[in-house]
Parts: sequence; C-alpha cells; structure tokens
Amino acid sequence: MIYFDYTATTKPKKELLDLHTRINEEYWCNTEGMYNQGVKAHMLLDKSSNVIIDSLKLKNKKVLFTSGATEANNTAIYGVCSAYYNEPKHIITTYLEHASVLNVYKDLEKRGFKVTYLIPNKEGIIDVSKLEKSITNDTVLISIMWVNNIIGTIQPINEVINIKKKYPRIKLHVDAVQGFGKITPNFNFNDIDLLTLSGHKLEGLKGTGALIYNDKLHLSFIKGGHQQDGIRPGTVDLAGCVVMAKTIKLSTDNIDSKYNDVVSKYNYLVNKLENESHIILNKSKYSSPYILSITFKKVKGETALHTLEKNNIIVGTGSACNSHSKDQEPTLIYILEDESLAVNTIRISLSTHTTYEELDELIKNIKEIGNK
Amino acid sequence: MIYFDYTATTKPKKELLDLHTRINEEYWCNTEGMYNQGVKAHMLLDKSSNVIIDSLKLKNKKVLFTSGATEANNTAIYGVCSAYYNEPKHIITTYLEHASVLNVYKDLEKRGFKVTYLIPNKEGIIDVSKLEKSITNDTVLISIMWVNNIIGTIQPINEVINIKKKYPRIKLHVDAVQGFGKITPNFNFNDIDLLTLSGHKLEGLKGTGALIYNDKLHLSFIKGGHQQDGIRPGTVDLAGCVVMAKTIKLSTDNIDSKYNDVVSKYNYLVNKLENESHIILNKSKYSSPYILSITFKKVKGETALHTLEKNNIIVGTGSACNSHSKDQEPTLIYILEDESLAVNTIRISLSTHTTYEELDELIKNIKEIGNK
Repeated sequence: MIYFDYTATTKPKKELLDLHTRINEEYWCNTEGMYNQGVKAHMLLDKSSNVIIDSLKLKNKKVLFTSGATEANNTAIYGVCSAYYNEPKHIITTYLEHASVLNVYKDLEKRGFKVTYLIPNKEGIIDVSKLEKSITNDTVLISIMWVNNIIGTIQPINEVINIKKKYPRIKLHVDAVQGFGKITPNFNFNDIDLLTLSGHKLEGLKGTGALIYNDKLHLSFIKGGHQQDGIRPGTVDLAGCVVMAKTIKLSTDNIDSKYNDVVSKYNYLVNKLENESHIILNKSKYSSPYILSITFKKVKGETALHTLEKNNIIVGTGSACNSHSKDQEPTLIYILEDESLAVNTIRISLSTHTTYEELDELIKNIKEIGNK
Repeated sequence: MIYFDYTATTKPKKELLDLHTRINEEYWCNTEGMYNQGVKAHMLLDKSSNVIIDSLKLKNKKVLFTSGATEANNTAIYGVCSAYYNEPKHIITTYLEHASVLNVYKDLEKRGFKVTYLIPNKEGIIDVSKLEKSITNDTVLISIMWVNNIIGTIQPINEVINIKKKYPRIKLHVDAVQGFGKITPNFNFNDIDLLTLSGHKLEGLKGTGALIYNDKLHLSFIKGGHQQDGIRPGTVDLAGCVVMAKTIKLSTDNIDSKYNDVVSKYNYLVNKLENESHIILNKSKYSSPYILSITFKKVKGETALHTLEKNNIIVGTGSACNSHSKDQEPTLIYILEDESLAVNTIRISLSTHTTYEELDELIKNIKEIGNK
C-alpha cells in the first residue's frame, strides 16, 4: 500500500502502542482513587499535562484531555458559549472550518446566536480586515482553523491574534489539527485562548485529543464528576493521556527538519504535475506542504481514487469525516467556484515516511487519469 | 495489593489489551476512507456493533460507541432533550443517579426544564407509584439507574418499564454501568430506549463505553462529521470499539455462574460483619452482591481507607468520580439520614477475582477499625 491519506489518519507508532499497553498494565487504578495507586495515577496525569505545557512553552494554560479533536472543538465552542444561552451572542468563523466546528455553530444559530462566516478568497485565505469589521459589541468568540484539512491553506493566525488583542473580552479558538506538529507556527500558542489538537493525525492513537485552554476560562460541556476540574468528567483514560502527551512531544521534536523534508517532496510533486493540463492544483503560496488538493477536469474524485487504488495507491477525497456524505465540501466549492469541479477532487497528503519512489508512482498514475 | 475497588475501575484483561494493539496495527485506516482498507475498517466497526446486538439479543436498537459512560449518559439525556430547548419539558429521575446524569439535569433546569427527583426509601429504592404519579403531559424522559454505584441498591427497572409502556411518548434511559455484565436482568433490554454501558468497569479499557438506543430516536449532542450516523462524530477509535464489543461479550458469557460466585463471597463477608456493633452495613434485600457499603459509627471513611491501605487493602469511599469533591454523596445522605455518618463510609466491591483469604484479611481489619 502506497499511502497518501495521512490527513485522514496515520498508523500509530509502535512505541506509542507499547506505552499504551504498559500504562494500562501498571497504572490501571482510577486517577480519583484516594489510595496510593490512585494518587500515583493522578500524578502521572498531571505529568502528562506538564509534558505538553513544557513542549509548547505554555504559560497560564491548562490541558484538557479529550477523546479527540471533535470533542475538543465542541468543548471549546459550547464551553465558551454556554454562559450566554440565555442571552445569545455573536461569533465569527469561516466557511473553511471542519464539520466539528461548523455544525456546532449551526446548532448555536438555532439557539439564537448570530454567526458571521468569513468567505475565503480564491487562494482559500480569509480577509483579516473583514474579520475586524465584523466584530460587534456582542462578539464573544472567534474560531479560525490554522491549516485547512481539505486544501491545506494556512490562515494568517498571527494577524488574527493582532486584531484579537485589541478586544480582550473576545476569545480566540484555533483548530490546529492539521498544522500542529507539522509546521512551526509564526505565532505564539500562548496568544490563543482555545487550541484544538488531535493524536491520531500525528501517529498517535485514535480516541486521543486535547484542548489547550486559558486557565481563567470556565468551560462547560460534558457534565459529570470532578475529573479534569469537572470540565471533562468521566473516568480518566490515563493510558490515552500519557500517549497523547508523548505524541505531542514526539511531533514537536525536530519539527523543522521534518517540515523541510516534506517541503522537498511537495515541491517535487508539484513540479512534476503543475504543467499537466487535465488537472488543477488547488494550491497557493499559503499552502501547507503536507496537503495537495488536485481537481481533475473530466474525472470524478471517487473514480480517480479507485483507479489509483487499483495500483495500490491510497488517496483521499474531501475530508474523511464527510466522505460518506452527499454534501460537497464547502471549502472546495469556494476555491473552485464550481460545484461540479468540487466532486472531481482528490486529496494527496504527504509525510516524512513518503518516498520519492512512491511519489513517482503517484505522478505516473495521475498523469494517466482522464488525460485523453 | 488486595483490591476491593472494582466499582471504581478494574484491571484490563490481557487479551483485551492485546486485541487493542492488534486492531491498531492491522486496521489503523480511517473507517470513513473510501478505499478498501477504509471499507474493511468500517465493516469491522459494523461487526462490533453486531457482536453487542447479538450478545444482548437486541432488536431495533443501534449501538453508539462513546468514550465512556459519562459521555453516553450525556448523549442520552441531551440527545433526547435537545429537541425541546425552545419549549422545555419535564423529566423524572432519582436522587441516586450518578453525577453524569444528575449534573446534566441540573444544567437542563437552568434552561427551563422541570425535573422531578424521586427520593429513595430507607432501603435506597424508589417508589414506583410515586414515579407514575409524577408523570405529566409534558414528561419526555425518565432516567433510572439500574444498580447504584455507592450502595449497590437495585432499582425495580421491570416495574418502571411496565409504567413506561403506558406512556409510549416517554423515553426511558437506564444507566446500567454497575449492573450490566454482573447481574442477569429481570427485565428486557429491548424495553429500554437508552442504555448506558461502560467498558473499564468490566475489565475492558478506560475510554470505552456505549449507548444502546432505539433506532428510531434522533439524538443530538456532539456535533461534527458523519461518523456513527452523525450522532457520535469524530474519527472512530476502531480498536476501542472492537475492544468494547469483546468486553461486553466476555462479561455476558457465564454471567450467572460468575454472579453466584460473587453472591457466595458477599454472603460470607456480610455474615462475618453483620453482628459488629461499630459499623452499619448499608444493604437491603435489593442490593447487588458486587457492592457493600459500610459506615463506621466513629471513624471517618477516609481514615478507614488509609488504615486499611497500611495493610495493603484497597477500598473506595463514595464514588471515585466525586472522591476529590467536598460534596457528600447524596445517596449516602438519603440512606443514612445523617450527613455526619455519610462521611464515615467506605465502599467494598467484590469480583470473581476476590478470594476468601482476601475477605478474611478485610474482615479482620474492619473488625479492628474504630472498635474500642
């Protein structure tokens, strides 16, 4: 299998699977147990938080371990907005967000919240001046994805932060799932109030995620006991937390050399494909090198996917989260300005594991598909 | 370590840890991937659902895999009630519920819902006639725990079902965490609209749980992509789902012989302790043999816990979920009718792994604590 769907998920690292087993064998007692084994388990939970805090050089932040990025996004947005259910407020986001952000906002609109959806330009980037103009006295939250999961565009989070700093009462939520551990940010994580991370996109385990949040925020979403300050109740999956912390640590180690390696592979791929007239590369100077969206002018994405699969090449179409939906990705419709082309799109994602031989095989096959 | 806190959590079975690793190694592709490996992963997810459906002989039910029982309880209650946010309705529950039920209802009360909390009698059992009397035209949901996690009382779910059948529009939610896989029910799971299960209480993995729900129900809680019918979006933790299904299968196999084994151990323990005048056994004829709540007349539960711990005996106090809270367990206050005695309580929980030698050691120590 030649795998190019790292954006959807990754194969867990052996060392992380082994760690998961070891923690389950050695620290299986409940972190809330008042006896020594419970206290030891709780200390390991605290240590896992601190590994993340230290790895990201965070100050005045807390780590909420979640079952994944979807739960983290829900907790961030509902967590902030629940304080305003009786007096709905205004939120700013973009049409490029993941379904686990967009569908929360659609729900909040039903409850009376006003939501401004920023429309990206042709390069897939939001206009930060429009973001600032849309701020009202009622605005309580801004959600902007760092790296888009469909086309890989990188939003100007640093500029968003500069605006946000003028309005201290507004909270900033950033879904960092596709940027974190892959790209060194040109902004400070400490300037973000709510940061969503995923484990399984970084060779960690499915079922692991985290929300890094300002320690002054009072979030409320899942209700229950007192675990994780009562913000994320339920018996702590300590092995999952330890593995998530290690996943974050490993992904941030040597991040620049890994990034440079992927940039080289991305440039190699783009150079070989950019003169092909039967395809459109949905990229810009603001794209992540980990994702290349390709639209075939005359072939459906699903057909291209299965044609590639016959040659053992695995790619994605749209996002995995919506692959079985009939709805097209709004991101693609905005970029391509053509709903019929949106369905003709595949997503190639790269990794440090990608080899040039794999790229050559991919290039050869893409050149043949629909090129008659 | 002589462990008597099986109600808080259990040590995961080696075979389930191995299964978790194997699924992560062999089926790590995204269940939503449109390529063959994704389809195979999705088929394994469907198979996991069917293992549960078949084990419990369910009809017209669906399985929602969750990150645990807390999320399952939240999904059940918010899932049903979200349809009424603009026109809040009436709910019936008990003061004995777990925090992941009670705290959802407290939140819904803030949003305008009316909640009737049934008060248990001195044996810890609700009065079913009072339940029926409290039903109004506005009642949409009843939540009754099967087996209480603090004192082990078993509620008359069969009688609740008989009442519920007269009011087909009312949905019945049962938190079955401490009864399921331990006690053969005297009711039919098919008569329950929403059934909450946990994995880690049954030697499965923390981070695994399930909500069994009527396939006609439209639940809405966590928002995101289309995974698990969009009811529980987020990349599926397939290994967790497979392990949860196997946990359920294993726990229901030979359930009666395991139950009888624990009943014998429970009776042995009770016989040796029931004439001790320095303690109160918080039990009745409606108690689960897996849980024995003991109140010391003159010693705090925390002191007893640490005294036992010095002799390598591990017990719980109240519920693990609230052990670090200053709030006392409402369950204990209702049963003991005395807040000062509630804090003097420990929880012994038994398992098929419990040996008579362990019980003798426990009995010897309990006889000595506060008995001067």
